[in-house]
Amino acid sequence: MSKQVLVIHGGAGTIRTQDMTAEMESAYLKGLEEALLAGYSLLEKGSSAVDAVLAATKSLEDNILFNAGRGSVFAADGAQEMDASIMDGSTLKAGAVSAVRNIRNPVELAYMIMAKSQHVMLNGKGAAEFASLNNIQTESDEYFYSQFRYEQWKQMQESGEMALDHNVVLRGNKKFGTVGAVALDKFGNIAAATSTGGMTNKQFGRVGDSPIIGAGTYANNKTCAISCTGHGEPFIRAVTAYDVSCLMEYKGLSLQEAMDMVVYEKLPKIEGEGGMIGVDALGNAAMVFNSEGMYRGVRNEEKMETAIYK
Amino acid sequence: MSKQVLVIHGGAGTIRTQDMTAEMESAYLKGLEEALLAGYSLLEKGSSAVDAVLAATKSLEDNILFNAGRGSVFAADGAQEMDASIMDGSTLKAGAVSAVRNIRNPVELAYMIMAKSQHVMLNGKGAAEFASLNNIQTESDEYFYSQFRYEQWKQMQESGEMALDHNVVLRGNKKFGTVGAVALDKFGNIAAATSTGGMTNKQFGRVGDSPIIGAGTYANNKTCAISCTGHGEPFIRAVTAYDVSCLMEYKGLSLQEAMDMVVYEKLPKIEGEGGMIGVDALGNAAMVFNSEGMYRGVRNEEKMETAIYK
Repeated sequence: MSKQVLVIHGGAGTIRTQDMTAEMESAYLKGLEEALLAGYSLLEKGSSAVDAVLAATKSLEDNILFNAGRGSVFAADGAQEMDASIMDGSTLKAGAVSAVRNIRNPVELAYMIMAKSQHVMLNGKGAAEFASLNNIQTESDEYFYSQFRYEQWKQMQESGEMALDHNVVLRGNKKFGTVGAVALDKFGNIAAATSTGGMTNKQFGRVGDSPIIGAGTYANNKTCAISCTGHGEPFIRAVTAYDVSCLMEYKGLSLQEAMDMVVYEKLPKIEGEGGMIGVDALGNAAMVFNSEGMYRGVRNEEKMETAIYK
Repeated sequence: MSKQVLVIHGGAGTIRTQDMTAEMESAYLKGLEEALLAGYSLLEKGSSAVDAVLAATKSLEDNILFNAGRGSVFAADGAQEMDASIMDGSTLKAGAVSAVRNIRNPVELAYMIMAKSQHVMLNGKGAAEFASLNNIQTESDEYFYSQFRYEQWKQMQESGEMALDHNVVLRGNKKFGTVGAVALDKFGNIAAATSTGGMTNKQFGRVGDSPIIGAGTYANNKTCAISCTGHGEPFIRAVTAYDVSCLMEYKGLSLQEAMDMVVYEKLPKIEGEGGMIGVDALGNAAMVFNSEGMYRGVRNEEKMETAIYK
């Protein structure tokens, strides 16, 4: 029996105590705890790592505080476009979806693509059609609407800026709104999932690293399960999640060593700000980021921890 | 001064002598020679590897025989949706585009995304908007129309099949229509580009490996430049192009050894049929495929070779 573990993140970036009220802080920590509970209770019942990362990521998507699912930011045209992906480390099967609208849980759509289609990645209207055929829950625009996100978008529109941000964006602040989970189940299988609402005021159908297998998400029982959050472009160029796996498989690094090398050494060389969470099949877990903060949490038999700052 | 070299492919799969007329064979070989000439003449003039792979890939896109650009296959809705990507091994900059229509040269749009935007990957209508702002050439549906592709699509529609195919598809035959190029220039820089018209009768906005940095395309002066062609789903799950780079960087394998391991050992384990072309910064070049054939060609100071079968 493996030492089951669940790790989650709710985005990284310039998250500082001085920008945060005590109420906001406790709401974020509560959201992280709920997601840990949603995923870990399944692991305890003997569910798979895939089920656990799915449940934890859905919980974060349903929470309006995090930029994914319900809490997705507004793109330049005022719509919320979402991306997600999931990978099963026991089969190397994967599912990913980009540029979907009005899907309640994009990670569930990614899961259905993995489970029920012959494809890995579906996109846009075609993905919505697949979702509809598979009874994936949709929600009206109102469900995704929050005054807070709307004002954030209006502010970005007026200034002509575009943000990768998680919440209120001040000039010079970078917040990368993404959620994700990685898990090891008692059968020794690992899995990873990632979901995002993208960049506030984003244009041109930009796709970040979240739906890209190898960049934002990767899982392989032989090495690790990784979910990333950060400035998507350098994370794509660095093939970030799979790089951790290769450093473990080909160079013999431990999970922690490989994640440290990618996040502290390799990503900064191409201005890659952000972080990642990871587990391996031995029950090791790590949360590494080179930004000021990362919403994160870990749960295993011994502990449940949530944190925001360094 | 480096030993400049250009390698191209025009797709892989069940390509057999008995399915081919002498006229078709010579038309394909002529198309490959034209693409080699388009790219290599630039290398001889001192242009960059990026310029060379761009020119060679555009030449293949303009040729109606290959499933990319002009020769793109019909998706389920009767439209031609195209994907492409490009990566510069000297800067690790990359550009990618998915699900665009009516763009004459998707690889040029990928290049413009790399050169002129702060993003790596743009998608669908947003990508078209970016293309229009950057004066990327579009063409009417007629330009992309060929009786041959249309009949291929009607045939698939009637049978309810979907094909990853390059040309006439008989049951049990698999042909992966993609084009691509990799090059080393005299300054020691390498680059890779890939472009595709996707699967005949494809549904649900399926995205294959061609626009995925790390899967279909990767370039890094430290290791290699790779362009893949094959069944996109396993190529995404195996993070194929970047895996070659990691085997070279972390395990010390040569370009040929790394490509052989990925194509002959790793991909078949997940039913990954297809192939890839690669160069490294020392001027080594390789073309490896586990399917019956791959349209391919190589040009350096000593030779120009084109081939189809094993």
